[in-house]
Amino acid sequence: MALVPMVEYADAPPEVKAVYDEIMRARGSDWVNNFWKVLAHDPANLRRMWDNVKQVMAPGALDPLVKEMIYVAVSATNNCEYCTYSHTASARKKGMTDAMLGELLAVVGLANETNRLANGYRIDVDAAFRPDA
Amino acid sequence: MALVPMVEYADAPPEVKAVYDEIMRARGSDWVNNFWKVLAHDPANLRRMWDNVKQVMAPGALDPLVKEMIYVAVSATNNCEYCTYSHTASARKKGMTDAMLGELLAVVGLANETNRLANGYRIDVDAAFRPDA
Amino acid sequence: MALVPMVEYADAPPEVKAVYDEIMRARGSDWVNNFWKVLAHDPANLRRMWDNVKQVMAPGALDPLVKEMIYVAVSATNNCEYCTYSHTASARKKGMTDAMLGELLAVVGLANETNRLANGYRIDVDAAFRPDA
Amino acid sequence: MALVPMVEYADAPPEVKAVYDEIMRARGSDWVNNFWKVLAHDPANLRRMWDNVKQVMAPGALDPLVKEMIYVAVSATNNCEYCTYSHTASARKKGMTDAMLGELLAVVGLANETNRLANGYRIDVDAAFRPDA
Amino acid sequence: MALVPMVEYADAPPEVKAVYDEIMRARGSDWVNNFWKVLAHDPANLRRMWDNVKQVMAPGALDPLVKEMIYVAVSATNNCEYCTYSHTASARKKGMTDAMLGELLAVVGLANETNRLANGYRIDVDAAFRPDA
Amino acid sequence: MALVPMVEYADAPPEVKAVYDEIMRARGSDWVNNFWKVLAHDPANLRRMWDNVKQVMAPGALDPLVKEMIYVAVSATNNCEYCTYSHTASARKKGMTDAMLGELLAVVGLANETNRLANGYRIDVDAAFRPDA
Repeated sequence: MALVPMVEYADAPPEVKAVYDEIMRARGSDWVNNFWKVLAHDPANLRRMWDNVKQVMAPGALDPLVKEMIYVAVSATNNCEYCTYSHTASARKKGMTDAMLGELLAVVGLANETNRLANGYRIDVDAAFRPDA
Repeated sequence: MALVPMVEYADAPPEVKAVYDEIMRARGSDWVNNFWKVLAHDPANLRRMWDNVKQVMAPGALDPLVKEMIYVAVSATNNCEYCTYSHTASARKKGMTDAMLGELLAVVGLANETNRLANGYRIDVDAAFRPDA
Repeated sequence: MALVPMVEYADAPPEVKAVYDEIMRARGSDWVNNFWKVLAHDPANLRRMWDNVKQVMAPGALDPLVKEMIYVAVSATNNCEYCTYSHTASARKKGMTDAMLGELLAVVGLANETNRLANGYRIDVDAAFRPDA
Repeated sequence: MALVPMVEYADAPPEVKAVYDEIMRARGSDWVNNFWKVLAHDPANLRRMWDNVKQVMAPGALDPLVKEMIYVAVSATNNCEYCTYSHTASARKKGMTDAMLGELLAVVGLANETNRLANGYRIDVDAAFRPDA
Repeated sequence: MALVPMVEYADAPPEVKAVYDEIMRARGSDWVNNFWKVLAHDPANLRRMWDNVKQVMAPGALDPLVKEMIYVAVSATNNCEYCTYSHTASARKKGMTDAMLGELLAVVGLANETNRLANGYRIDVDAAFRPDA
Repeated sequence: MALVPMVEYADAPPEVKAVYDEIMRARGSDWVNNFWKVLAHDPANLRRMWDNVKQVMAPGALDPLVKEMIYVAVSATNNCEYCTYSHTASARKKGMTDAMLGELLAVVGLANETNRLANGYRIDVDAAFRPDA
């Protein structure tokens, strides 16, 4: 159960309603998920985080599905239950199949393993990998 | 400095040389990076890890560049200096530009932020995000 | 469900009862929370951890509310459900409002984001930030 | 060495110069630290991150020194060398003494310890700590 | 609830059944735990992970109980609920008592504390601890 | 470079000298490592941490070498450079060979991998692994 009460649309002040409306319009949906309803107890932070998500997740040099999969990779590494479920759901909507999810998590697992081998053995970075090589 | 000495090609036993040869052939290069030269102190683990990397990073439902970028995302999240440098170098070889790297790290940063907001506020997962929804 | 059974006051050996009594006296309460009842299966570690908490969380150069908020910041970063709930409850008792919690978690989120940008880009520390600058 | 070149003031496009000017004005200084000079390779992200820092770190329900100390607590937990040095320097400017730093890191250490005891033993959250208690 | 459906023995393709049979034979049991039934949605990864576990956890320079306890130490540090429960159960089967678990988690907690003190204070490694000392 | 100056034996107040003497006696050595010399800027915390280390790392249900290896496992997982070097050195003094270190880090790597597979797929814990099973 969240540490602060969720703000429902009917009870929301105008600046919160405005963000909720943007979220629903952007997603073509008629509901707002719990993440935003919890953040809404602090309207300035709600606005800030939504603007961040909009800007960072917009199509650009990377396509939105790749961005969602990177989001899942980070969330699985950090063990964020909420973000793993919500961004997997988003990635599936954008076309991620079970096979893609399987490969994504296999890379996440392997990277977590080799990260610890490299850190644990204290391996020196090869000069050829440095950006000025 | 690594916790165990690195095994150079000239001094390597045959089963280590065999892995080194495979690595160089797979990459079309004439050298082996420090990660493998450290693992080589334990030849069975060297073979095991190389076979894992080959299998997991092969083209499949995800293309190799996306896999490298997921690798970078995990390595940046875990603060693995070695893996961040080496997999960024690999991703660049496969076509990652500075603009793509910028967007990749922006997603990594944002996901690390919202992971803590979701975990810190202890936000309940919406039923609609559950796989049986 | 915890990996070892909890030790209730009525069943506790004298050295465990002594710690429980100190905890309740220090908090002006008539119950002991699960954390201590689990640690009590190993009385020497129970005593050690309680003495650590008493010493570290006592008023000093930092006031107890700031210390509780730092505790929440670490617990949210590490995703410790137990510690997030229990230290948020303690911080509220000491005066933390919803607005303070909102700002605290906003800093936690932002720090987790910029930590990964700094580590992910492998940014060199400015000489001016070194303690001998 | 950073993965992308740093953008110096003299070579910066106008939208980057504008952010650099704001940073220096806000800090009453005549230089910009490496974090921003690396982010500047992607001007939209530079602007986004600076706006986030300004908003989140501004005085509010928590005072700026407490916010800096929370930043240090998260950075020490995540092992971000850059952020630990830079935010410790900022906290000292705002009045943090060695004694305060010592107590801050003692709390960080203890919280990291009890986080693992609570997670490792899988201790159930007491009903009294739930927000609806 | 897992992100992909579990594959039960009766519905499993032959290459999955073969791994399940190996797992049950190796453990002298008549059931397969959820970890493998989830991985089985991607048979090549199921085979890969089982082969890794067999090789890494086999008796060698370290005995299997020590290996299980190291597994628990990592899982408690990372807050993996599944792995903490499953590897604690395995360690108990191999002889881990409550007293051993208590000491194991005490070391895990202490190491997590001193890791942050060393990283937070940015303490330089003594020359005497370097492998070439 | 550490955030606070190190306290050398010659300049240490009596309560710090007393801890330094205990450390050297316990290790049969004639020097004190940087970790303690940094903590010494806050004598009460120096005493507290040394008493913790003495109690937790003493022989008990687990032997000291196993405890050192668990320490290395946690430090490699958390990427603590200082603790990885210092506790590997301690473990070698107590008898850890290169082969044992290789197996230890192989388990650490594998556990970090499967921790993310279990968390990433959100796998439900089998009832048989619960302590009341």
